[in-house]
Amino acid sequence: MRERIENIDLSIRKISEKAADQDDIVRFDIGQPSFDTPEHIKEAAKEGLENKQGYSPMLGIDELREAIAEEENGKIGYGPEGKEILKDHVMVTTGGMGALYAIFAARLGDDDKAVFNDPCWGPYKMISEVSENQWTQVQYWDEDRNLREEAKEEIAEADMVVVNTPSNPTGYVLTEEQAKEIGEFADEHDTFLISDEVYHRLTYGKEHYSPAAYACDSAIIGSVSKNHAMTGWRIGWIVDEEENIEQYAKVSRASTACPPRVSQYAAIEALQNDSHVEEMRETYEKRRDLLVERMNDLGWDFRAPEGAIYAFPEVGEDSWKFCMEMIEDGVAMVPGEPMGPESDQNIRICFGSTTAGEISLAFDKLEEKIQ
Amino acid sequence: MRERIENIDLSIRKISEKAADQDDIVRFDIGQPSFDTPEHIKEAAKEGLENKQGYSPMLGIDELREAIAEEENGKIGYGPEGKEILKDHVMVTTGGMGALYAIFAARLGDDDKAVFNDPCWGPYKMISEVSENQWTQVQYWDEDRNLREEAKEEIAEADMVVVNTPSNPTGYVLTEEQAKEIGEFADEHDTFLISDEVYHRLTYGKEHYSPAAYACDSAIIGSVSKNHAMTGWRIGWIVDEEENIEQYAKVSRASTACPPRVSQYAAIEALQNDSHVEEMRETYEKRRDLLVERMNDLGWDFRAPEGAIYAFPEVGEDSWKFCMEMIEDGVAMVPGEPMGPESDQNIRICFGSTTAGEISLAFDKLEEKIQ
Repeated sequence: MRERIENIDLSIRKISEKAADQDDIVRFDIGQPSFDTPEHIKEAAKEGLENKQGYSPMLGIDELREAIAEEENGKIGYGPEGKEILKDHVMVTTGGMGALYAIFAARLGDDDKAVFNDPCWGPYKMISEVSENQWTQVQYWDEDRNLREEAKEEIAEADMVVVNTPSNPTGYVLTEEQAKEIGEFADEHDTFLISDEVYHRLTYGKEHYSPAAYACDSAIIGSVSKNHAMTGWRIGWIVDEEENIEQYAKVSRASTACPPRVSQYAAIEALQNDSHVEEMRETYEKRRDLLVERMNDLGWDFRAPEGAIYAFPEVGEDSWKFCMEMIEDGVAMVPGEPMGPESDQNIRICFGSTTAGEISLAFDKLEEKIQ
Repeated sequence: MRERIENIDLSIRKISEKAADQDDIVRFDIGQPSFDTPEHIKEAAKEGLENKQGYSPMLGIDELREAIAEEENGKIGYGPEGKEILKDHVMVTTGGMGALYAIFAARLGDDDKAVFNDPCWGPYKMISEVSENQWTQVQYWDEDRNLREEAKEEIAEADMVVVNTPSNPTGYVLTEEQAKEIGEFADEHDTFLISDEVYHRLTYGKEHYSPAAYACDSAIIGSVSKNHAMTGWRIGWIVDEEENIEQYAKVSRASTACPPRVSQYAAIEALQNDSHVEEMRETYEKRRDLLVERMNDLGWDFRAPEGAIYAFPEVGEDSWKFCMEMIEDGVAMVPGEPMGPESDQNIRICFGSTTAGEISLAFDKLEEKIQ
């Protein structure tokens, strides 16, 4: 067995294992929507089953690639008046994870380096470990939303920079200026930019801006998983130039053959008839407002989530200790430590997976513990 | 972009692209069943949609892992009286491809080497290229079904050996003695053995023997794709020790997150109610008999397929030249050259994807061309 594989740290699993053993627990630790996939999407999957269930084309079913191109062209800076995305720029993958993996494995050799924000979604590091390349982590933004000098140094010398907006785990959403600054900076320094935008439909009073709109050498990662409550279907995508797609497709083929066919029919429906997204977003926004109110009451240091389904407050003590103790008291949360060295006193709370009632109950318990 | 990725040869695509442009063509080149997924399996998928479509457990849904263990225990040499396979030895993957990729990426470093038979299924090489390790190809068996000296040398010094029975592209099925010989030989020389058995239900007058039954350090690769006409669903599996499964799971997680949920419900039904397999096998056997008769008439040098859905006759001239010419005449086949240096005068004919009528038509055309 390869040493880097054996060394991959799954310590975060301790949380879910411990939480699963507990009765009466609020699961803030699970990073997926509380909603089930909407019924009309399931119906479309059933209709899709009337087709022969053979291999799908390697890059995905054309109708889905078209629907994805249309979705992406709806973003600010894209479409006929901006950077226009065509079907040929789209590759359907086995989830956003399959999309990220394909780019890492196709682009980065042993000594090539990717830069991640601190904190970042943990699996970025795992993808880098498995696809055998180097990575580093640095805080990208200062309090005034400017790119930090230290981040510039790392991005300038790296081969790839990953930007995630709206962000997991922080709920941070880049402004137009930030998207432009990091996109142009990466471009100037020939650092390939991955813009992970899998939460792009879930923002609260903010617009979504894509840093990839400002970087020639860049790819967008998208997915139906979070925006459409479809995590189990495993449909994501890459948007990039056709000649790059051709290389990513080799990784995708070698690791998955092709994306699942029935899921692609579901994804077409999700993108073409998408009023469910706004309904879910409104519910998430109410939960977020409640969460912000309760975190204020607790006196925690935090930034109000602007998008995605997470808050990332600072708790003023070791994140592992805090999380392990709170599980005993009936609240499961994820420690910040594995998400970045600067985040070892933060915790991640997912409000996408919990009802308002559960949020209230969990904060009653947190108040009891802290005050 | 990594050089090894850019250098991956997709020349075989020329065949399908050329064939797709042609009217009235028999597609012997497509490596998938002509059958659609049986109706009761599609119904099970629909019922499965009544469940919430969230992420599946990383190793797959327990009920499917149980059904796979039962399927594998039905093989000769397995079960309570042989090597018993438990649920914990099973990891569900995104197709057989995802299973193979996970083992290669978890086990082989840059300088580690895998050995493949000549000829072998082309994607093995692609998996090795993408997961960044070394490979070599050697003819495993002599005419008397004994392991060749040259093969022994390669297997003894390699880190991994891949055995595929029933075989794509040859239709060759290992006897009990062969399975034992290669399994024990790999074991003696500490070479990890991958036994790719994705066609194990499709044999013609032969029993299936698993070389992994004779090798302690080995994994079985399985899939519903070919045995159950389910290529589009992307469900495969690995059987290995629990501690190894834990390492493979890291690759699977980093490259796909988890296998698609709806497909897993379909796979449970396929394995639990499987009378459709024998019906399809009987049809394949009739097509195989017809194919053998027609190849005999042509005077080709070939070994009658004993399993899987392929024949691999020698045509006595350059396989690329022969295939490219025959497409013009309305028969698409795959050249042997990319499958191994010793196979450059062979061609692969898939009788799984073509009806008896199409086989007759294609051989009328071949007779015209050759005689």
